[in-house]
Amino acid sequence: MSTEDKKRRPFFYDVTLRDGNQALRHPWNLYEKERVFKQLLKLGVQGIEVGYSGASEMDFAACEHLAKMAPKDVIISGLARAVERDIVMVWEAVQHAARPRIHTFIATSPFNMENVLRMSPAQVKEKAVKAVALCKSVMGGKGTVQFSAEHFGDCRENLDFVIDLFHGVVEAGADVINLPNTVERYRPRIFVDMVEKVARALPPRVTIAVHTHNDLGMATATTVESYFGGATQLETALNGLGERAGNTNMYEVACALANCGEDVPLNMEEIFETAILVSDWARVPIYEKAPLVGSDVVAHRSGIHQDGAAKTKGMKKGAYRAIDSGMIGRKEGDRLGFTSQSGKTAVFEIIRGLGLPITLPEAAALQPYLKKLSEEGGRGELRDEDILKAYDQEILNVSGPLEFRGFRVEPNEKEFYFDVAWQGKAHALAGQGTGPIDACMHAVEKIGLYFHLIEYSQMALDIEHLDFAAYALSEIKLQRKPGPGGVPGGAEAIGRGKDLDTIKANVRALFNGMNLLLR
Amino acid sequence: MSTEDKKRRPFFYDVTLRDGNQALRHPWNLYEKERVFKQLLKLGVQGIEVGYSGASEMDFAACEHLAKMAPKDVIISGLARAVERDIVMVWEAVQHAARPRIHTFIATSPFNMENVLRMSPAQVKEKAVKAVALCKSVMGGKGTVQFSAEHFGDCRENLDFVIDLFHGVVEAGADVINLPNTVERYRPRIFVDMVEKVARALPPRVTIAVHTHNDLGMATATTVESYFGGATQLETALNGLGERAGNTNMYEVACALANCGEDVPLNMEEIFETAILVSDWARVPIYEKAPLVGSDVVAHRSGIHQDGAAKTKGMKKGAYRAIDSGMIGRKEGDRLGFTSQSGKTAVFEIIRGLGLPITLPEAAALQPYLKKLSEEGGRGELRDEDILKAYDQEILNVSGPLEFRGFRVEPNEKEFYFDVAWQGKAHALAGQGTGPIDACMHAVEKIGLYFHLIEYSQMALDIEHLDFAAYALSEIKLQRKPGPGGVPGGAEAIGRGKDLDTIKANVRALFNGMNLLLR
Repeated sequence: MSTEDKKRRPFFYDVTLRDGNQALRHPWNLYEKERVFKQLLKLGVQGIEVGYSGASEMDFAACEHLAKMAPKDVIISGLARAVERDIVMVWEAVQHAARPRIHTFIATSPFNMENVLRMSPAQVKEKAVKAVALCKSVMGGKGTVQFSAEHFGDCRENLDFVIDLFHGVVEAGADVINLPNTVERYRPRIFVDMVEKVARALPPRVTIAVHTHNDLGMATATTVESYFGGATQLETALNGLGERAGNTNMYEVACALANCGEDVPLNMEEIFETAILVSDWARVPIYEKAPLVGSDVVAHRSGIHQDGAAKTKGMKKGAYRAIDSGMIGRKEGDRLGFTSQSGKTAVFEIIRGLGLPITLPEAAALQPYLKKLSEEGGRGELRDEDILKAYDQEILNVSGPLEFRGFRVEPNEKEFYFDVAWQGKAHALAGQGTGPIDACMHAVEKIGLYFHLIEYSQMALDIEHLDFAAYALSEIKLQRKPGPGGVPGGAEAIGRGKDLDTIKANVRALFNGMNLLLR
Repeated sequence: MSTEDKKRRPFFYDVTLRDGNQALRHPWNLYEKERVFKQLLKLGVQGIEVGYSGASEMDFAACEHLAKMAPKDVIISGLARAVERDIVMVWEAVQHAARPRIHTFIATSPFNMENVLRMSPAQVKEKAVKAVALCKSVMGGKGTVQFSAEHFGDCRENLDFVIDLFHGVVEAGADVINLPNTVERYRPRIFVDMVEKVARALPPRVTIAVHTHNDLGMATATTVESYFGGATQLETALNGLGERAGNTNMYEVACALANCGEDVPLNMEEIFETAILVSDWARVPIYEKAPLVGSDVVAHRSGIHQDGAAKTKGMKKGAYRAIDSGMIGRKEGDRLGFTSQSGKTAVFEIIRGLGLPITLPEAAALQPYLKKLSEEGGRGELRDEDILKAYDQEILNVSGPLEFRGFRVEPNEKEFYFDVAWQGKAHALAGQGTGPIDACMHAVEKIGLYFHLIEYSQMALDIEHLDFAAYALSEIKLQRKPGPGGVPGGAEAIGRGKDLDTIKANVRALFNGMNLLLR
């Protein structure tokens, strides 16, 4: 049934920077790609597709930059259509890596050859073979060539043609044959049968790769089962980012393989933190019920489940746990408590669990304070009140050189007066604006402080327990800028403010954020 | 490999009201359960597990109520531990249905028998057989009995024992044997092999059911493959709701089976609307990249994908589409446009696509207005500007008996003055409060209008295009109440307000919401 081979290990080839990035609402720039790249190195992936260098100058520059900083043991790959321009551009970008790869592709499904490429199968085969030969020739003996038959999952009717094409590209020098389920249309068993057929047909020196999409929610299963069907290179993405419903989720594949006894070559304890960071960087929130990393998946709400979880707490295996969540760096598992041994992800989870917003950098900043609190007088596991108090002091009341003392608004609602102290000296600053935030930012310009507002939101806190006099919680993300009309730059800070008065919550958030940038 | 039988059809047994509900942060009351129940009938499921009647009086009452209103052809089931009290309570609740079922269960995995039940396998078998016999006896020849081996997916080591237990419960009268992957730990093929073994061992009159969870992201695949392995009853949940990472997602299973040529006995065109409604009712947002129903899964962002999508637009099959999205009632597919033929889900998707918040009921209220606009002078497909203008007029400026004319605030920030017209008559109302929302709600009490604030939030609109003078958009959910200190009741309304000034945005939202409840 399966071609399991005990000496074989999965090879994780990450496509977040290419397939993931191309599907983002705000694709990453060079700096942002580097941040993700470094996280992939921390995770210990074996291959990274750094981009589609033909897409834009920015993507070319990013590919080149990442190839130059790549460690010796990681394959660095760029995507190219089966055309000379793309192939040459990928090579120019990735040749700086110790283990460069050109990844070229063409669609081989009857539907796509006819309707999108508008070419005959013979023409497609010729183009594929020529492209692989060109890769080999520009690379001059260095690196490896990967060929993908786009829409492979839709090649049931013409699989014999596709295998024939594979023989051609392997003869032309392809080292890796990638089988993409470009659009998920059927079910894993149908795809895996095709993978097995290809694996049997090609010489053993050829690496079989699978690249699956999640249109029907079965990408993880298809990739996992394909591994047991003979595919070694698994193309996955952080947080399952990618076109439409995404690419295959790396974390799910890694945990399933580990649970099935396979030797997973990843630093899996980095998974949980990576998921939180990538969610922020991609501006794609983690679904609360996302397997392994969702905020809600460690909760047990029914009595029967709570009983089972309690009776197996502390055991390596839990009655209602798929994994020991320490395996992915989510140390607290079924229930959370902060002790001096807890890290920033524990802070992050506990505070989110209390219904309050926080980012991972804020959690990291708060952790030493909580650690100290837990150690003081052997207090041990902190109570929720202790943690809420710390949040109040360290996040909602940031101390710094700019002190907010009060404000008032003129009845005409256009002019606001702010009493502040700047580096210990009192000022009464007037500011006009369309509202208090705008007015406050104009007011502090009078003492030479220039800021740029990136994002703003406000929510009601604890609304269920009150009538209509609830706390408002504001979140303001800002950056400094050099002067009026200047280009904002440097670090970003998030200021949070809480008040019964929605206006004051905004002003407090603004002052907290400004102090984080000023101190 | 598979035991496909062309005359066999999948039987959809829905567990949203039981497994889904027990995992909610705010479990549903009787009214809310009825709302979901009716939606399940619209979808045309074959069986509904209405609750765990032993859990609480409320859940018992809901089970009884839904059993009484059930149509003749739908199986109505309640869950019972293998104990007399639970079994009797289920029967009292479900006996009113034309096709009642008791669903009883006990754990059969070595780990759970030892650590949670703390019973020997022989004791577990005895308890299971007795429970099924008791079901048969209380039911007096009516209905059907379903037995579940909880943690079946973790019974690889003792499968022979479990099959022996199944023979016992079948002899005692079980009609359906359910195989739950209570916690997803391995991979689909391992589970399906076990399903096939059970299916071969039991007499053909016994229905094999599967009930899978999504801990590693493979629940859909496991259920789909189990169907081809001999399971007929598929236990799924709306939106994949359920403990931890959820139960099997009904929509994904239905679409995968349909794509594989199976005869899916559901009104699949209700899926998209159901997903949006259930997300609101469960207070669990739809992940933007959720297969089939996520807001982002119909977008194509890379040039290659956009080209393929454009070349296959209007075809039944698309280059980058898993399904023709009309199949699930998402009529617009790859690209959205409002015409006189478009319904409320189109309005919902277009407005969300423009970055504005809206609920399905708001979209339904806006649809006739847009339809008329589209028909006027043969305008056809509306432009984004037309839709934004309609949103502005109908949602951000609700006309009604209470007119907001202006307000001012005292420099002491505690007293607000509101100029309003109530049923055409002008009033100047003063209100005190912790902020403008609070003050405004107190102010209108002076003309006899009492409201209860349920939820409040504010966000910045279009922030990326401006410096820091952006629009604020407030959302206020409220209900009426009979007087001071009265219990709020009746319909809920969402008021939205937009203004450059964050305070005015709140006040406008409040007046819009109040008018929706007053008119």
